[in-house]
Amino acid sequence: MNNIIVQKYGGTSMGDAKRIKNVANRIVKYKNKGNKMVVVVSAMGNTTNSLIEKAKEINTSPSSREMDMLLSTGEQISIALLAMAIESLGEKVVSLTGAMSGIYTDQNHKKARINRIDPSRIFNELKSDKIVIVAGFQGITFDGNITTLGRGGSDTSSVAIAAATNAKLCEIYTDVDGVYSSDPRKVPKAQKMKEISYDEMLELAKLGASVLHPRSVELARRHNVPLVVKSSFNDNEGTKIIEVNTNMEKVLIRGVTIDKNIARITVANVPDKPGVAFKLFKKLADNNINIDMIIQNLNHENSNDISYTLSLEDLENGKEISNEFCKEIEGGKVLIKDNVNKLSIVGTGIAGSAEVASKLFGTLYELGINIEMISTSEIKISCIIEDNMSDNAMQKVHSAFKLDKLEMSN
Amino acid sequence: MNNIIVQKYGGTSMGDAKRIKNVANRIVKYKNKGNKMVVVVSAMGNTTNSLIEKAKEINTSPSSREMDMLLSTGEQISIALLAMAIESLGEKVVSLTGAMSGIYTDQNHKKARINRIDPSRIFNELKSDKIVIVAGFQGITFDGNITTLGRGGSDTSSVAIAAATNAKLCEIYTDVDGVYSSDPRKVPKAQKMKEISYDEMLELAKLGASVLHPRSVELARRHNVPLVVKSSFNDNEGTKIIEVNTNMEKVLIRGVTIDKNIARITVANVPDKPGVAFKLFKKLADNNINIDMIIQNLNHENSNDISYTLSLEDLENGKEISNEFCKEIEGGKVLIKDNVNKLSIVGTGIAGSAEVASKLFGTLYELGINIEMISTSEIKISCIIEDNMSDNAMQKVHSAFKLDKLEMSN
Repeated sequence: MNNIIVQKYGGTSMGDAKRIKNVANRIVKYKNKGNKMVVVVSAMGNTTNSLIEKAKEINTSPSSREMDMLLSTGEQISIALLAMAIESLGEKVVSLTGAMSGIYTDQNHKKARINRIDPSRIFNELKSDKIVIVAGFQGITFDGNITTLGRGGSDTSSVAIAAATNAKLCEIYTDVDGVYSSDPRKVPKAQKMKEISYDEMLELAKLGASVLHPRSVELARRHNVPLVVKSSFNDNEGTKIIEVNTNMEKVLIRGVTIDKNIARITVANVPDKPGVAFKLFKKLADNNINIDMIIQNLNHENSNDISYTLSLEDLENGKEISNEFCKEIEGGKVLIKDNVNKLSIVGTGIAGSAEVASKLFGTLYELGINIEMISTSEIKISCIIEDNMSDNAMQKVHSAFKLDKLEMSN
Repeated sequence: MNNIIVQKYGGTSMGDAKRIKNVANRIVKYKNKGNKMVVVVSAMGNTTNSLIEKAKEINTSPSSREMDMLLSTGEQISIALLAMAIESLGEKVVSLTGAMSGIYTDQNHKKARINRIDPSRIFNELKSDKIVIVAGFQGITFDGNITTLGRGGSDTSSVAIAAATNAKLCEIYTDVDGVYSSDPRKVPKAQKMKEISYDEMLELAKLGASVLHPRSVELARRHNVPLVVKSSFNDNEGTKIIEVNTNMEKVLIRGVTIDKNIARITVANVPDKPGVAFKLFKKLADNNINIDMIIQNLNHENSNDISYTLSLEDLENGKEISNEFCKEIEGGKVLIKDNVNKLSIVGTGIAGSAEVASKLFGTLYELGINIEMISTSEIKISCIIEDNMSDNAMQKVHSAFKLDKLEMSN
C-alpha cells in the first residue's frame, strides 16, 4: 500500500442502470491501470426523495434516528447495484455499508460528524484485490446506530476515507466537470478553473457553489488530501484543489457565488448587557443550528438588534429557539426574513484590498440593490441582498471583476 | 423479564401506509396490556420484486453476496416506517436491522441459517421500555457480511428471537387467519383448525401449506416456542401450534396440501454399485440443494434409476450438478420433469393405517391420476402426480377424508 484512489459518484452519476454501468466501466479502467480502487457512492437520483415521501405518509415528524435508518437504505441499494455492475465486467468487488467500512460518527442523527474511520476492513478487501464500494453519506455510532451525515455527506465520506487510507488521490465525480468562476447555468460566461486552492474552494463551497460541500473541503485541507472535481459524463480534466500558491501576491478574484438557501433572523431589542449574544448563540449551537453571518448593533432605543443568517432548513428551529431565548431573557422580539440571498466574491488577497470591496459595493449600488448585511474574510466578501435581484447581480459582478474573459489557467 | 411477546408481520400486512398504521395500532394495544413487544417484519409488499428488477437491469446473475446487500434494504425500510408509525402514536420504539438484533448466520448467502442470536441489544431496548422492531429475513455473518435467510426467513427470524428471548408467545401475522385443512382458495370447504401439533404443522408446512415455513416450525418445536398463526386484517382467533395431543389415538387426517413448486430429476442408468447414490446426494448437499423425495429402483437393464424431487428454484442447479455427476461416474443420463405437483395428506397416526393409504390411492385412481412417486412418514403420505390434475385431486381427497364437514375444534 499505497496506490489507492478514492472516487466518489453522486446521485446523478448513479441515476439509472445505464449510468451505473458507465461508472463501473470507468472504475475498472482505473483498476486496470494498477490502482487500488475505493469508490464511495450516493443514493440513486430520486431514491432519497421517494423514501422521504413514504415516511411522510406515515408520520409527519418522524425521529431523526428512524429517518436515518430509512434513508441509509438508499446508498445501500446503490453500492449493491454498482458492485453487481462491476461483477458483470468480471472484476472482484465487494460493497460495504458505512458501518462495515468502519465509519464511526457522533450520535447527531441526520447531520452526524465522522469521529473516526477504522479502515481495516477496506484494507483487507483491497489486499484480496477487490474493488471496494462504500456507501457514502452514512456511518454508525459507537453504540451501533446507523447515522447519516447530512448535507455534503458523501463528499465528506470520500475525503475522510481518502485521508484514513492515505490515498494518493480523491476524485469527486459530479454532473459538472469542475469548479467554475460562477454558476454556469446563470452566468453563461463562467470559466472553468484548472486549479484552485483549498481556501478558495472552501469559501466558494461555503458560499453555495454546490460542487463540493465545505465540510469535505475543510477535511481535505486538514488532512492534505489531493482532491479533483470531475464530471462522470465525460473525460474532461476537471479542477484540482491544491495548496495555496504562495508566490501569488496580486489580488485575484476567483469566483462569484449566490447562496439562495439562507434566511435571516433578527432578535430585536435585546438588553445591551454582556453575555446576551453569547447565550443566544450558545443555545443555537447546543441545538446544532449552524449560523453563518452575525451582525449586532445598538439601535436608537439603546438596546441591541442581533441578526444572523442560517440555512432555510434550519429556519423553523432557529425561530423556535430564538423565541425561547426571548422568553428566557424576558425581552427581545424575533423577526424573520426568508427572501434573502447571499452574494459573495472569493479570491486570494481580498483582505487588504479596499479596491475590491468598493468595486463590489459600487456594482450593487449601480443596480439599485440594497446591501442588508456584509461579512468579510481573508479571501471573500459576502453581501446579503434581496433574492429577486440576485441572479442579475451575480452576472454583473462576474463581468465587473473581468471573470468573463479571464485566463483561468491558474 | 419475561413478559415478552414476539409478533411477526409479513409483506402483505406491511403493504402500504394504512396497513402499517394498523399494525402499529395492534402492537401498541398489546404493549398497553403490559407486554414487552418485539416485532419482526418483512419487506413491504412488492419491494423485494422491484429490487430484483433493478438488479436484473444491471447483471443477470449477480453474486448472492451482493443480492443480500441489496435485498436486505427491503426489511430495513419496513422497520423504519413501522417505527415511525409507532412514534406517531406516542410510544417509545426502536428499529433494529438483523445485524443490530444480534442475528448471526452462516455464510450461505441467499439461504443463510441462523447460528446464534445474541439478544443483549433487544433486552437493553426492552428495559428502557421501548417497542423493538426487528428486520426479519436477514442476519449477519461473524465476519460482518449481511445475509438473507431465504424462503420463510422472516418466520424463522421471529421464532429464533422468541426462543432466544424466552418469549411467552410468538404470533405470526399473515393474510390468512389460521391453518386450514386445505388451501381455502382451492378447496372452498376447507376448515380452520383451532389447534394443531408441531409435527402436523411441520408436515403441512413442508407440503406447501404456505402459511408457515417448515424451518420456523421445526425451530419452534425444538425450542418449544408457543406459536400462533393469525390474520393482521381481523381479530379472529387464529390457530395455535401445540405439543402433540398424546391421548389422541385414532387416526385423524388434518389436512390436504398441494405443492406446485417442485420438479423431478431422474438420473437414469447409473451402475448398480455401492456408494453411487451417496455420491450424488453428497454432491447435491455440498451445493446446498435441498432434496425432498428420493426413489431408487433397479431397471430392466440391471442398472439403477435414481429419481429425486426438489424445488423449482433449484432445478437449474440440480440439473447441472446431476450432469456433472454423470460425467464423473462416466455413465447415467439426466431426465427432467417439471410439470409435477406433490399432493399430500397429513394427520396423526397415518403410519399404522393401511386404510388411509388405500383410500388416498383409490381416490386418485378414480380420477384417472397416475402416481409417479410415493413417500410416507409417521404422519403423512405424499404422491407425485401430473400438475394438470392436482387442484381437482385436492378437492376430491379433501371430501374423501370427510374434511369438508369435520368439526375441526381440535
